[in-house]
Amino acid sequence: MEIKRVGFVGLGIMGAPMAANLLKAGFALTVWNRTPSRMEPLTKAGAAAADSPAGVAAASEVTITCVSDSADVEEVMLGPGGVIEGAPVGSIAIDCSTIAPPVARGVHDALAARGVAMLDAPVSGGDAGAKAGTLAIMVGGDERVFERCRPIFEAMGKTIVHVGPAGSGQVVKACNQVAGGLNLLAMAEAIALARGAGVDPAKMLEVVSSGAAGSWMLANLGPRAIRGDFAPGFMVELMQKDLRIVQQTADGVHLPLPGTALVQQLFRVLEAQGRGRDGTQALVDALAHLAGPLPAPGD
Amino acid sequence: MEIKRVGFVGLGIMGAPMAANLLKAGFALTVWNRTPSRMEPLTKAGAAAADSPAGVAAASEVTITCVSDSADVEEVMLGPGGVIEGAPVGSIAIDCSTIAPPVARGVHDALAARGVAMLDAPVSGGDAGAKAGTLAIMVGGDERVFERCRPIFEAMGKTIVHVGPAGSGQVVKACNQVAGGLNLLAMAEAIALARGAGVDPAKMLEVVSSGAAGSWMLANLGPRAIRGDFAPGFMVELMQKDLRIVQQTADGVHLPLPGTALVQQLFRVLEAQGRGRDGTQALVDALAHLAGPLPAPGD
Amino acid sequence: MEIKRVGFVGLGIMGAPMAANLLKAGFALTVWNRTPSRMEPLTKAGAAAADSPAGVAAASEVTITCVSDSADVEEVMLGPGGVIEGAPVGSIAIDCSTIAPPVARGVHDALAARGVAMLDAPVSGGDAGAKAGTLAIMVGGDERVFERCRPIFEAMGKTIVHVGPAGSGQVVKACNQVAGGLNLLAMAEAIALARGAGVDPAKMLEVVSSGAAGSWMLANLGPRAIRGDFAPGFMVELMQKDLRIVQQTADGVHLPLPGTALVQQLFRVLEAQGRGRDGTQALVDALAHLAGPLPAPGD
Amino acid sequence: MEIKRVGFVGLGIMGAPMAANLLKAGFALTVWNRTPSRMEPLTKAGAAAADSPAGVAAASEVTITCVSDSADVEEVMLGPGGVIEGAPVGSIAIDCSTIAPPVARGVHDALAARGVAMLDAPVSGGDAGAKAGTLAIMVGGDERVFERCRPIFEAMGKTIVHVGPAGSGQVVKACNQVAGGLNLLAMAEAIALARGAGVDPAKMLEVVSSGAAGSWMLANLGPRAIRGDFAPGFMVELMQKDLRIVQQTADGVHLPLPGTALVQQLFRVLEAQGRGRDGTQALVDALAHLAGPLPAPGD
Repeated sequence: MEIKRVGFVGLGIMGAPMAANLLKAGFALTVWNRTPSRMEPLTKAGAAAADSPAGVAAASEVTITCVSDSADVEEVMLGPGGVIEGAPVGSIAIDCSTIAPPVARGVHDALAARGVAMLDAPVSGGDAGAKAGTLAIMVGGDERVFERCRPIFEAMGKTIVHVGPAGSGQVVKACNQVAGGLNLLAMAEAIALARGAGVDPAKMLEVVSSGAAGSWMLANLGPRAIRGDFAPGFMVELMQKDLRIVQQTADGVHLPLPGTALVQQLFRVLEAQGRGRDGTQALVDALAHLAGPLPAPGD
Repeated sequence: MEIKRVGFVGLGIMGAPMAANLLKAGFALTVWNRTPSRMEPLTKAGAAAADSPAGVAAASEVTITCVSDSADVEEVMLGPGGVIEGAPVGSIAIDCSTIAPPVARGVHDALAARGVAMLDAPVSGGDAGAKAGTLAIMVGGDERVFERCRPIFEAMGKTIVHVGPAGSGQVVKACNQVAGGLNLLAMAEAIALARGAGVDPAKMLEVVSSGAAGSWMLANLGPRAIRGDFAPGFMVELMQKDLRIVQQTADGVHLPLPGTALVQQLFRVLEAQGRGRDGTQALVDALAHLAGPLPAPGD
Repeated sequence: MEIKRVGFVGLGIMGAPMAANLLKAGFALTVWNRTPSRMEPLTKAGAAAADSPAGVAAASEVTITCVSDSADVEEVMLGPGGVIEGAPVGSIAIDCSTIAPPVARGVHDALAARGVAMLDAPVSGGDAGAKAGTLAIMVGGDERVFERCRPIFEAMGKTIVHVGPAGSGQVVKACNQVAGGLNLLAMAEAIALARGAGVDPAKMLEVVSSGAAGSWMLANLGPRAIRGDFAPGFMVELMQKDLRIVQQTADGVHLPLPGTALVQQLFRVLEAQGRGRDGTQALVDALAHLAGPLPAPGD
Repeated sequence: MEIKRVGFVGLGIMGAPMAANLLKAGFALTVWNRTPSRMEPLTKAGAAAADSPAGVAAASEVTITCVSDSADVEEVMLGPGGVIEGAPVGSIAIDCSTIAPPVARGVHDALAARGVAMLDAPVSGGDAGAKAGTLAIMVGGDERVFERCRPIFEAMGKTIVHVGPAGSGQVVKACNQVAGGLNLLAMAEAIALARGAGVDPAKMLEVVSSGAAGSWMLANLGPRAIRGDFAPGFMVELMQKDLRIVQQTADGVHLPLPGTALVQQLFRVLEAQGRGRDGTQALVDALAHLAGPLPAPGD
């Protein structure tokens, strides 16, 4: 049976445009946000407002959450007034936050015990992708539940892949951040070498981006990095949050990820400068900093 | 004035198809190779054979060299019977090998002192690109000399960029290997995490390749790596040779490249196993090895 | 006024001999342990047994805790039946566990609000040092409180240093593990290089230990490592626990510690082999493993 | 038969005091140095001056060389006017320079072909140790030759160990630099963490130096580092020279040394600041630099 009533909890920089796309796609939408004022644009556009995540869930066949971290997901899903208190047996919860895989599995199991299915469905593509409805969505959980929810995902994203059982979506998101972080380091070291050895980094990017050493980061963030545009697509401090999840996941399975560990340490160079809210392309400055003038002794 | 007579020194896995493409494009070609039998396919197709690099240069307006490393380039360019002994004043030498930038500048200067111009023009794209004539070519040296040689480059490659004065082509090639090496590590760590955390790496590649963490390596070598296909596009031992040039270049300008240094150390794990002639995608096995069973104590 | 009545909570591999030394030094000792049987040797020797940490604290002027991690300290100090429920106003709590500095400060503040002073006093020296009473003890907290407790510390350790306000003891312990971890890596890489280059590592240790590159680890654990004796002085999995605290502490102040991050990743190689309970000198095997034979493809 | 006539080639910061100690010990000394003026103090004290390394060797039973790097050793040993041209059959050459093990073996073999024995005998202990005659000397080569030369070594050093066949001395010196470099990183990261987390690093050093995480570097260079005394015991640029030998040696046997590779990259941070002639304890500033204020964008 086709799903019509969808709920959305967490109307931040990602959640708000994702919810708006659901509304445009014709779903009956109920929303909740901790700061109520952020609900207004959506209620004006036809959404109903609930007074808690439980209220959202009570009104919806599928309730989506999109919040900051593991603790927030546990609270809006399982805490007082949480989804678990309102969700009807047989309904579905989808979490689009990026959190630790074991937490995702824990929430899945707690909801399952109450007859509520859950998918972990972290997204990639930034606020631009959220607005354009072109997100990549990596989904873990029961495959039939995933198939039932496909029209919902298609209203929000473009690359939509079921990657395995509960928690798998979060694992794939962790893999995504591993690859992204190291591709950023590739970009930063290549630019540093070009500059250090006296070659125009723009010329370097022109050749290297087009070949076997090319990447999305090099082609899209490289040019911004070399002209000193550090406006965030994705912020350093959010990357660090995600990389903490990566190390926690890797630690849990005793997997060494030495490159990713190095990336984390280098992003700390930026955080130490108060640049946690710059875009991740600022990593190029962390490398430049290593080769830049030392502060005078005694500073 | 249009260049017609071109020479080619070094008919290896890259040089032979590059020379063949020059012949197809209508240039009058003279060739030389240390192992004479490798000249046969070209002489049968209409090339002339010389008995030394000097002989090639004497017969050519432009002489191209494509050999293994810095010492080989110095020998075929400047050694006994080398290009320098035969090249007419006003002719041009192009070196397509990947070598250390200071060596490229040294050869450039030695030739310049004898009235011979030189371009350093390392290529990227592997033997497949050499055959198809789709190489990326990054060219350092005098810009007017570059423009005169453009038809020659266009017979061999697709992305052709003049990147700066003598040595700049080699610097950009070094940047290319920095980016490529770290993108390979990105691929290897992402696959290791997927496997370690119990997710199908093919599903992971499907999502991650398409987004902001995507790269040529992930899309092209990732699938080969996970099905255990380690046939070389580009061999581990050649990558290591190039990464030594990178560190030498970075060392010369006191530039720290910690990520690239780590990549080199991890490739040694493969070399220690006698897998230096595997393709670089084997890096995924070096990571897997870190998490695999230790040999019994005492082994 | 001289302290006579001391309590001890947590009679594990470290706590039991530390408590025994207090008894030998003439303090009136009250003890508690989660597994009651571990109290017997001490009660037979004259200690009183309480039925909770609160009971210990009620009977003592100074209550010492020595448990596993941050959560355990919070529980025995602040949880139901915890020290906070029994400790008289004006009494002192000392925590000898190794935990995160911010948790130490949090427990300090919670106890202070109830009129109970607290020192964080992690130790170094292993169970051998605990038995011999030769531990190094690094103490954070109020200096006058520290001076009052000095006779207690002197009954358990040899190098006893007040290093700063609350939490400072834990910071210094974190520094100790940073230095220790990297000294172990120094030992492991030096041994690997000797072996790899065909030199007897025992001869190498003989020279290197005596000079400017010498360390306690090299002199004491190096010989064990090369003869394959991996019996724990200090276990890999406890080192990893401590290094997690280090990274958490460094992350909180945005401090990059790239060497320590690498050490953590290499210890994971051992954990992946089920060797988490080996001594930390097993790091030499993680390095050897990198250079050892790869498992056959498909394994 | 007792050795009486000893030659010394290379009277630099290390060689001059080593030669002086031989003179004091009663050996008949012949010397040579590229810059002749540096021979004067020794000739005034009774040494004879030769006009070439060959001249030194012709006058000596044992000729010692102590120069800068591999190329210098090859020149003074095997080049025109080199030791090989003057050394009598049955005489002995000892090289005290720090060079690549394969070069040491190559020189050994070239001399052996002319009936001249050779020991590689790099030293550790700095100019202070050279003056005091307390160097550690690690000797590779034939054991009987070593025993014959023991009185010579005892005139210059204190810890004197025969570590294996030709080249082994240089391997052990490489191991020494691996351990020393990582112990320096241990010192630097421990100090950075103390400072970053607000604890007096002197207090930290006081505790940590005395225990299982202690090292010569921590105890001797730590206090200098924290008070900003960067006068060289051993210079950054010499350490980097030695670490290049280490990587070359490890590369030759396909041995990954990821920690040492990181140390090299961090020393480059200092070299980039023009601090190559500071003492190695300046590594603490490279770490501090990572966490220090970034130059303003555009700088």
